[in-house]
Parts: sequence; structure tokens; C-alpha cells
Amino acid sequence: MEQNTKQSNCIGIVGLGLIGGSLGLDLQSLGWTVHGLTHRQLTVNKAKERKLAQVISTDPKILSNCSLVIIALPLAELLKPEPELINALPKSAVITDVGSVKTPVLKVWRKLHPRFIGSHPMAGTAKAGVEAGTKNLFNQRPWISTPEESTDNEALEIVHQLALSLGSQWITAKAEMHDQAVALISHLPVLVSAALLKTIRNEENSSLLALAKDLASSGFADTTRVGGGNPKLGTAMMSNNTAEILRAITSYRSSLEAIEKIILREQWKELESELEKTQAIRPDFV
Amino acid sequence: MEQNTKQSNCIGIVGLGLIGGSLGLDLQSLGWTVHGLTHRQLTVNKAKERKLAQVISTDPKILSNCSLVIIALPLAELLKPEPELINALPKSAVITDVGSVKTPVLKVWRKLHPRFIGSHPMAGTAKAGVEAGTKNLFNQRPWISTPEESTDNEALEIVHQLALSLGSQWITAKAEMHDQAVALISHLPVLVSAALLKTIRNEENSSLLALAKDLASSGFADTTRVGGGNPKLGTAMMSNNTAEILRAITSYRSSLEAIEKIILREQWKELESELEKTQAIRPDFV
Repeated sequence: MEQNTKQSNCIGIVGLGLIGGSLGLDLQSLGWTVHGLTHRQLTVNKAKERKLAQVISTDPKILSNCSLVIIALPLAELLKPEPELINALPKSAVITDVGSVKTPVLKVWRKLHPRFIGSHPMAGTAKAGVEAGTKNLFNQRPWISTPEESTDNEALEIVHQLALSLGSQWITAKAEMHDQAVALISHLPVLVSAALLKTIRNEENSSLLALAKDLASSGFADTTRVGGGNPKLGTAMMSNNTAEILRAITSYRSSLEAIEKIILREQWKELESELEKTQAIRPDFV
Repeated sequence: MEQNTKQSNCIGIVGLGLIGGSLGLDLQSLGWTVHGLTHRQLTVNKAKERKLAQVISTDPKILSNCSLVIIALPLAELLKPEPELINALPKSAVITDVGSVKTPVLKVWRKLHPRFIGSHPMAGTAKAGVEAGTKNLFNQRPWISTPEESTDNEALEIVHQLALSLGSQWITAKAEMHDQAVALISHLPVLVSAALLKTIRNEENSSLLALAKDLASSGFADTTRVGGGNPKLGTAMMSNNTAEILRAITSYRSSLEAIEKIILREQWKELESELEKTQAIRPDFV
């Protein structure tokens, strides 16, 4: 990305958790001056220790000189931004976010700022909070942007170049399509995986559970990883993408019931053929 | 394990795939003479190249001098053993298997040999076949044995020492309990994961699928890993542990429906509390 923009060499990041902190580290390496805004003084101190930005404060005024502001808040706060934050965003700056659903974000933000660009960098680790930020998190990861008719094309191009400079793979899609795709590929796996853990939790035979504990292997660990993740993040996904998730669950239930029926009827050739098809499709998605 | 037994220093392995081949490599390192029996001459040649055993042949007679024979055949062949194999097993030898379900195995084998011990070493990789065997596969992995009233205790102790010598964690359980536990912890995840891949395969909107492909990340990869595994192995699991698997699916379906209901009612506090519980239980199983 061209680092000497017309306006300033300053990028603002609101929220210095996993995504915000990681952006801060990489953008400084790329030569930007990063101003990081956080809620609490404790976070300011920790973020300073970790050098997540050059300027770190709880005062929204630090954004006033930034030509680009990335809002890396949790979804709930992104969707109900504080008036102090909105007022502190320079009118001429490009504003973007990192939220994992896009329709509700655009619904709020297209009214709040004329140069808002919906973004979803799809990167993550199991960690969260000010200790979580890490270098190179976005490298070779998809960065989806969801422009609409009213989108400022110059602003879009600035976010595009930002994503490329971080090594991300730039993808644009309609917000609705994005939300359907993440429901299927990201939110549904969380529920499928959580339901597996809930099944174990519901088992009442304690000696069976004790044996199951001893026997659980990497297959169980992998299948339950996302279902055992951050409960607040999971809830935010589901509460903000509800319609698409319910559609995905319905589709999933009918897939599972079809497999159950094959087993119930002991149609083993058909089961093998089903498992061959699931085996064949997976490499396209990993 | 005491290597100079009363009878011989020879261990027979029937089948030199992932489990049989891995056993061959480790047992030779421990000082045993390993005789490997395979079906086809092509496998004999490959197994010789890989030094999976000292003596490798398609002739069951090579088992005649062995004090211990491990039957490491696929489940279908283990449950319908060829008469030539049964006749070749020394009556005084200890016989054990590596099958992933135990009730049907005992049903067949307790009649076939007086010193049969049901075993399930829970180790594996994604590979199969004569190229798959690898050293140290069983180290720190559970080795479940399922003795019953009629079991020869001396034979059980010989298999126990074998498992310990390979670094395995020895567990004994009733065959029924074993099969219920693996249904829950190992077979159910395969189906849950396969149903997720089937849901993707059923999606008719091709541009949505193309976007989903671009966005799929490690969460999707992990949750679908076991569902995208070996179709023959998956089918063998389901066809030989059907009743327990159907019980596990029923329980899973009601867990999933409970979560779906919470989302449908938009009870977000309750969803977060559910996800906290699933998060809390997982560390016990990984």
C-alpha cells in the first residue's frame, strides 16, 4: 500500500484484541503510524508493553488525524457503536471493520459514515484479548469485502490495497452471500461441534463417560475444537446471522437424517458410497 | 515383555497394513522375530522392502511356530476369517486382534480359539495399506482389552505385557461398554462430520458454494476431517456397531435440536451458557 497518502501516515485501530492487535503489529512493520484505541486503561498498559501500536489511549481523539480507521471491536460493540467513537471518526477517513457477519454491519454503518467499507478478514487463533495479537495473521488468508451500490470506490480501493499489503487474498461478495457462506462454512460447524460436546455432557452413565474419556483421540479433539471455542464469539455469530444459520441447521439436519436412515436400513453399500462422496468433496474446502 | 517365552520368540502378524505394519516395526525393535502373513504376493514384496517383518509370506504355515498371533485384518475379514487362517493358528498360542468393535469380534472368536483376547489399540493415522506402517504408533495411546468370564488369564497377561512394551496405556472394559464408548467418542464424530460435508454437497447455489470454498478455514477443515476419511473403514465401523451408533445418533439429534430451539427463540443468554458448558467439558476429552 502507498504509505504516504494524501492525508496522513496514520491508521487508527479501534480495539486491540486478536484482530486489532495483529493488525497493529503488521501495519507498524509496513511503516504505518498506528494509533490504537481501547476501552480500559489496563488494556492500554498491556498493549503498550506488547507494542501493538505507537500511540495507545482510551481517548477517541487519537483517531482525529488518521486517514484510515479499522474498527476491530467485538460484533456486539460494532453493531452498537458508542456516540463518542462515531463522533471521533474523521469524515474524510476511510472506515472499515472486521466483523464476521456483514448484512447487519452494513445496515448500521452505511448510515453512520459515507466512506465505510464492510470487511471480514478470515483469520484467527484460539486466543482472544490484548495478549492474542500476533504477526502475519492475515498472510494468505481470505479478506472479504462486501461493497454495495452506494460504496465509495476510492475507499474500497484503499481497503483493497491494505488487505494486499498484509498478504491477504482479496475477495468481494454481496453481504447476503457472505453471510450465507459463513453460516455454512463457519457458523454451522460451531453448532455441529457444540452439539457433539452436548451429547457427551448429556450421557448419564458415568462409567461409560469415564471410558469414553480414556478413549477419546485426535478425531474427537478435531471434531469438537470449534464447538469448544469462545462462547461469547459463538453467541455473537448466531445472534447476528440467525436466519442464515437456521437455514443451514435445517439443511444439516436433513443430511444427518438421510445418513441415519441408511444405517437404520443397514444399506452398507449406500453408506460406503455416501462416505466416498463426502471424502471426495472435502479437498476442495481445505 | 519377556522375550524368551516358554514356546518361541516368534510373534505372528496377520495383515501388514497400518496397524499390522506398525506392530511389525516396533516388535522387531523390541527383539522379537516377526512373521508377517499377507494375502497377496505384491504386498509381500512391498512389506519386505519396508522390513515390516523378518519372515513375510502368503502361506499361513509361517504362523505355526509363533507363541502369539496378532490378527490385524480389516474388520470384515476379522469377523469372517478364512478356514486356512483358523487352521494355521497354533492351539497353544495366544491370539489377539486389533478390531475397533469388540462384541461381534468376541462372538466369532471365543468359539474359534481358547486363548483369544479381544484387543483394540486406539492408534491411527490417515494412511492405510502396506505403506502406512510407522514406528512408535502405539506409544502413549490407549490399548483396550475386553476380557470376559471365559478368558484365559495367562493369555490376557501376555497381551497386557505386549501392550505395555509398546508404550500403550492398558485399559480393560466389558466389550459392550467398549462398543458404546467408541460409538460416542469415535463413530458418532465420523457421522456428524460426514453430515457436514453432505450439507455442503447438497447446496445447490453454485456461486454460494464457490464463495464458501474460498472462505473455508481451519475450523471447517478440523470439523470435517474424520467425515472425509476412509469410506470402507467408516462403513465397517457403522455396520459392526449399528445398535450403539443409532443410540448415539438419537442422542446427538436431540442435542442439536435443543440448540436449534434456543437459536429459534433467540435466547442468547441461554445459548452463551450452553456454549460455556460445551467449552468446559472439552478439556476432559482432549
